[in-house]
Amino acid sequence: MQIETPQPVSYTCWIVYCHYSGLQSFSSPRRFLAMLPATLLAKKRDGQALSDAEIHYLVDGFCSGKVADYQMAAFAMAICINGMQSGEVSALTEAMVRSGDKLPRCSDRPRVDKHSTGGLGDKVSLILAPLLATCDVDVPMISGRGLGLTGGTLDKLESIAGFQTQLSMDESTKILRKTGAFIIGAGPDIAPADQRLYALRDVTGTVESVALITASILSKKLAARLDALVMDVKVGAGGFMKTLDQARILADSLVRVGAESDLPISVILSDMDQPLGAAIGNSIEVNEAVDVLQGIGPPEVRELTIQLAANGLVACHEGMSREDAIKKLTSNLDSGIAMERFERMVVAQGGRPDFPRPIGSELMIESPVDGWVEKIDCELLGQTVVELGGGRRQKQDRIDPSVGLQVHCRVGQRVRRGTPILSVHCDKRQHDDYKTPLQNAVKLSDQSVKSVPLIIEHMS
Amino acid sequence: MQIETPQPVSYTCWIVYCHYSGLQSFSSPRRFLAMLPATLLAKKRDGQALSDAEIHYLVDGFCSGKVADYQMAAFAMAICINGMQSGEVSALTEAMVRSGDKLPRCSDRPRVDKHSTGGLGDKVSLILAPLLATCDVDVPMISGRGLGLTGGTLDKLESIAGFQTQLSMDESTKILRKTGAFIIGAGPDIAPADQRLYALRDVTGTVESVALITASILSKKLAARLDALVMDVKVGAGGFMKTLDQARILADSLVRVGAESDLPISVILSDMDQPLGAAIGNSIEVNEAVDVLQGIGPPEVRELTIQLAANGLVACHEGMSREDAIKKLTSNLDSGIAMERFERMVVAQGGRPDFPRPIGSELMIESPVDGWVEKIDCELLGQTVVELGGGRRQKQDRIDPSVGLQVHCRVGQRVRRGTPILSVHCDKRQHDDYKTPLQNAVKLSDQSVKSVPLIIEHMS
Repeated sequence: MQIETPQPVSYTCWIVYCHYSGLQSFSSPRRFLAMLPATLLAKKRDGQALSDAEIHYLVDGFCSGKVADYQMAAFAMAICINGMQSGEVSALTEAMVRSGDKLPRCSDRPRVDKHSTGGLGDKVSLILAPLLATCDVDVPMISGRGLGLTGGTLDKLESIAGFQTQLSMDESTKILRKTGAFIIGAGPDIAPADQRLYALRDVTGTVESVALITASILSKKLAARLDALVMDVKVGAGGFMKTLDQARILADSLVRVGAESDLPISVILSDMDQPLGAAIGNSIEVNEAVDVLQGIGPPEVRELTIQLAANGLVACHEGMSREDAIKKLTSNLDSGIAMERFERMVVAQGGRPDFPRPIGSELMIESPVDGWVEKIDCELLGQTVVELGGGRRQKQDRIDPSVGLQVHCRVGQRVRRGTPILSVHCDKRQHDDYKTPLQNAVKLSDQSVKSVPLIIEHMS
Repeated sequence: MQIETPQPVSYTCWIVYCHYSGLQSFSSPRRFLAMLPATLLAKKRDGQALSDAEIHYLVDGFCSGKVADYQMAAFAMAICINGMQSGEVSALTEAMVRSGDKLPRCSDRPRVDKHSTGGLGDKVSLILAPLLATCDVDVPMISGRGLGLTGGTLDKLESIAGFQTQLSMDESTKILRKTGAFIIGAGPDIAPADQRLYALRDVTGTVESVALITASILSKKLAARLDALVMDVKVGAGGFMKTLDQARILADSLVRVGAESDLPISVILSDMDQPLGAAIGNSIEVNEAVDVLQGIGPPEVRELTIQLAANGLVACHEGMSREDAIKKLTSNLDSGIAMERFERMVVAQGGRPDFPRPIGSELMIESPVDGWVEKIDCELLGQTVVELGGGRRQKQDRIDPSVGLQVHCRVGQRVRRGTPILSVHCDKRQHDDYKTPLQNAVKLSDQSVKSVPLIIEHMS
């Protein structure tokens, strides 16, 4: 039996609510129903938009225990299926920010961060944070761990002896003031509601929601009081978004919600149908990042880093042209200034700046025939790194930083029989296990293949 | 990062699963993913059908604790929004039946039960159970309590001094063997998964789902090993289904799923834009039921009871025509045989067959003008009974059986100024509070109004 409200609601809920409110009269159910969890879930179930107050009520209740895990899980499922308007996503983001603390201001420099949706061989953060810091920008980077096929920035950094990624807000603020950059994991003070909700989503089939992904990313960024955010949305088999359409929808959501939260966001949609750069692993990616910081390294890693960093500079240095930004960034890479800043950051976070990091013994895999590279199997490469011990099957797994892969070719490239196409770095005794399976990771064509552009689109 | 499975799944889930399964290889994720709760929820989220095994896995896991409340809540939300195919509903129903025990066979008589979606003044069960029992049919009726505007059969029966509705399976089987009918509440042995799921749905905005309502109703009926079920789906403001379309969808779902579970179901869609009969309350409805059992009482209560009971007889007495069934039922009401069986059932369940039951002091409300009855406000009438103490605001509320209403008119009826249209039965001191508000419960027109048919449609 239902009361005739504008939306179907459980009558039970209403009378329970009346009871708890000490109401003796049933005269105006509509008003009293507004804030019951089940009523709000029913609204989202029916595809209606929730008000800011309603969303804050749910998130605050989730934190205080008044809204149960099962209610939040049902809410997440309703959002997954029915979506949210950008105003709702803003309110959700804001509520999650308010569930924790914000990083205090510690300098007059503008604050910029970069976030990537994650992809194979993506070591851009390691280069971009110190590089931007050399351009009068603070980069308080809150990053994640790897789970599954994509590695995590924190895991890569922890392959540097002594490097600490779990710092208190005080410690990290001090480092930011001194070096202009840190890269740490989100502590329990940063958007705890997001951290709890994410844990629920992970086990209830509700990870894949543009609204929830947007709120999850932006809550941590807003808690860091950024002045601008640059996003790298990966498109392709090696990333979370498999198609350009999916990637554009996420990018659009991020830009909109950022605008509503006064955080300017620019997005680069970049190719993830092949790994970024050659190195995939932990120490091996740090080494490649160090190469780029010294003005060498794979051109595509350097290029994407500079483009993303330029977005950040243009967003927060008024009057700076994109050309000037790129010129300054290029120069700071080539001159060694960026590398010097990276070393300062490493030292500030307790690490020993001792590069290159040691890596496993190399097995080179050569092309069995002449041809053109048609496809690089990101899934197989990612799985191989996890199997070698360089990634996690589950959260508590320990990582072996020394193992990894190098991909010596890119799609469209011509290779000759005997040209090295891949290297595996691991214990020598494992070499034989990987030689044959990995030959299948690079698919060759006997006809010429077009190369694919690294940067697909800019959005802001 | 996702594996390319036919549907999006959380990669995390997969690797966690691989770990728990002791799997060291990632070679065939698709196969191993099949039975992870999050994967199954994601399937339903994406609108796909689950297999019988998958549904059993979730329900069994829910009972054993391997599937958490938050996972089941998210599943219920996904079902609410995306629906289920009838095969899935059958599997869900079957899984819920299997979570508990089945009522043992105790005679050679066929078993029939009736279920109503609930409506104002619906006392049909009290008459139908003993009436059918006089026609060589066992009626093991598992019924519910009132919550909100619609009263519950168990509450009505408990207004009979000593009447017990919580009986063990042994006790109820004995009564069934002896008297051919019982009316009890579902004990903890009957479809416990349904009882737990319903409690979750109540607080997560997931009550309103045809699939879940169907499975919830039928799981209890299948646990009673019925040979046939007759359903009364109420349509209108005083019932759960507000429109004929909604009611047809539910009826269709019940009939289909019943067929797949080898339970023949016939449905009557009946009008609930006005109360059924005159009496609304507990003792007062028992008195009206007793009237009908003695061959008198409101014709529409008698009519609907006979039609529903005839469906039951025809379904399980092969070769019996509908005309013969109606003749026999009518005769058993008029001869007092049905009343005698009702008294035997009351005594068997511990009650004192002492009728009529005492009711509160009467306040008669008269029509203020001449006119035709255009509308009877079921919501207002139901709320009034709850306010008087005759219904529940929340589950643990105690009920005052003596209070209630009588509606002396039906839609389309001509009334004169001064004709009694309603009576309130309660403490005399409350009379003044209800006189004016209740006059609004019957809307009069100065032009003639068509009466509405009681039985809208038969489906089977």
